[in-house]
Amino acid sequence: MTTLDDLPLRDDLRGMSPYGAPQLDVPVRLNTNENSYPVPDAVVEAIGKALQAELRDLNRYPDRDAVALRAELADYLGHGLTGDRVWAANGSNEVQQQLLQAFGGPGRTALGFTPAYSMHPLLALGTGTAWVDGRRDASFGLTADEAVAQVEAHRPDLVLLCSPNNPTGTALDPAVIEAVLATAPGMVVVDEAYAEFARPGTPSALTVLPGHPRLVVTRTMSKAFGFAGGRLGYLAADPAVIDAVQLVRLPYHLSALTQAAARAALAHRAALLATVDAIKAQRDRIVTTLRERGHTVADSDANFVLYRVGGDQKATWRALLDRGVLVRDVGLPGWLRVTAGTPEETDAFLRAMEDVGRDPERKADA
Amino acid sequence: MTTLDDLPLRDDLRGMSPYGAPQLDVPVRLNTNENSYPVPDAVVEAIGKALQAELRDLNRYPDRDAVALRAELADYLGHGLTGDRVWAANGSNEVQQQLLQAFGGPGRTALGFTPAYSMHPLLALGTGTAWVDGRRDASFGLTADEAVAQVEAHRPDLVLLCSPNNPTGTALDPAVIEAVLATAPGMVVVDEAYAEFARPGTPSALTVLPGHPRLVVTRTMSKAFGFAGGRLGYLAADPAVIDAVQLVRLPYHLSALTQAAARAALAHRAALLATVDAIKAQRDRIVTTLRERGHTVADSDANFVLYRVGGDQKATWRALLDRGVLVRDVGLPGWLRVTAGTPEETDAFLRAMEDVGRDPERKADA
Repeated sequence: MTTLDDLPLRDDLRGMSPYGAPQLDVPVRLNTNENSYPVPDAVVEAIGKALQAELRDLNRYPDRDAVALRAELADYLGHGLTGDRVWAANGSNEVQQQLLQAFGGPGRTALGFTPAYSMHPLLALGTGTAWVDGRRDASFGLTADEAVAQVEAHRPDLVLLCSPNNPTGTALDPAVIEAVLATAPGMVVVDEAYAEFARPGTPSALTVLPGHPRLVVTRTMSKAFGFAGGRLGYLAADPAVIDAVQLVRLPYHLSALTQAAARAALAHRAALLATVDAIKAQRDRIVTTLRERGHTVADSDANFVLYRVGGDQKATWRALLDRGVLVRDVGLPGWLRVTAGTPEETDAFLRAMEDVGRDPERKADA
Repeated sequence: MTTLDDLPLRDDLRGMSPYGAPQLDVPVRLNTNENSYPVPDAVVEAIGKALQAELRDLNRYPDRDAVALRAELADYLGHGLTGDRVWAANGSNEVQQQLLQAFGGPGRTALGFTPAYSMHPLLALGTGTAWVDGRRDASFGLTADEAVAQVEAHRPDLVLLCSPNNPTGTALDPAVIEAVLATAPGMVVVDEAYAEFARPGTPSALTVLPGHPRLVVTRTMSKAFGFAGGRLGYLAADPAVIDAVQLVRLPYHLSALTQAAARAALAHRAALLATVDAIKAQRDRIVTTLRERGHTVADSDANFVLYRVGGDQKATWRALLDRGVLVRDVGLPGWLRVTAGTPEETDAFLRAMEDVGRDPERKADA
């Protein structure tokens, strides 16, 4: 039998495993920061109608530039944005891959501040961009001075920031973004996948866009919109940045179905985003309850919470799974990440953590 | 105003334009090798139902490995293939990009035989893979000896073949593929986007797969299936090749909607592929008629025809457009490419060519 070792694979991919959390069939899935609320009936009906209208003409290629969708995404974002300042692709992973292809690639460097979204270094690898693992402080913070010092030391072609940061959950002070922009010689990308969950008074990097053509803010419909299965990520930036990604995007990368479904979801955003407040309430409940129980917990502006467990996080992860609750081991020794979902899911998680907390080795009651 | 020149774009992208034929609103569109037949009502209904069943759960990420879809694509391909030997993505462009990321990239080289699918060198560029423009003979043929000599000269990490070749239309003798496989040090990719339109007795490269783990055959549902708007490309290869592309694929790259729609289309393939014979008849009619009129015409195993015009092809392209018929100027001096569509589209094209043929500068009658 042929194995991967027998094929002329790139040397820098040898020994790696595919990215991705286990897709397990478990009662309570709190490991991928999905929105736990299913799509409401009225929105199901609207998306269904929008899709139906596309089906007869699927023999034709879709609008290569997704003009209507981009205008509607701009309208949602506000901040005076228009369709020529927005670009969309199959998830923000693809948006970020295109940015790395246009501004990174062979002989170029991208800098991120670890721990952050773990796909960032993989996207760099996949596009032949050298990756530099920047540092955060012991409580995962990042000050403007620390960020600037690292940008000055490495002079990267791209800086990837993440606000709210994943897996820690805390939003970045816009002053850090502005300081990085003032120092960075290349592009600055702020991944705002979880922006809609930020605590009150947390400004988006969109406020920094005017006058900063090297700033790119990426977003997704996977989280607050509850549209993870539809795969729609997007960015806002200067129109010249859109010109740049169009040089590397695959032609017709966004299907007619994706464009139609996303547009219908955007038209019904009030119904979809109605879940955000409920999720934030559960997020805050998880933070408060775990702190009351003595856990160290990172501040969260997202729909997930990073918290410290006693001892080896792998044992706690497994013990929670034994109790029907799937959370995420993000590879930070002593920490686990849990998604904030429905009140019932929070109940199940907090109950399981209480049960496990005393002794991860103890067998589950159920 | 900021322009692309002001941004830190990769040097090798400077001065380029985005890939893509003009998307013009013209009565007869024969420029992108779409299937001119709309999706039949029964299939519209089936795809609509399949999509409807996904909508409530769009808040969840799709099956990252598209297991069911891949098994059904394997069943369609036959040749004893199974789902672990098939991989799917958003169009065969994305499949080929993943192959270049896994087996090409910085410091590596891909060889194609020009003219072939014009995205191949762009995919190489976008993945940082050096591109070598191989040669064909004056009538666009490629013998085993010629191919082997060029592979030996360049020792590429990937060889990209195209059968039936685009834009010429002619299928490759499997002996060429076997000869290249015997010589090439790396992967050999055969792009079979138009395989379903091949003339009788033309074997697919799928017949060469057994015992050749470095051979990859890519396909698409955009052409024969009339599913261009749904964006579904795929490949067949050794399971180790699937392991390789999984190291570079974006997680959840295929939406739940894409997977469901493609599966419904595959389940109704008899109805969709029923258009193939009618299209082949129009293809043969275009070839025969143009030859009777004295044009040089490439043999076609595809749903398009490459033919020689008198003088500058740009003038003829414009003159056809003035008459409401959009064909493709593929950049080969003196040649144009026309898609075979419905009988009425062929009528319009042949009438316009007859009218233009005498004098491209003459104004259209209409």
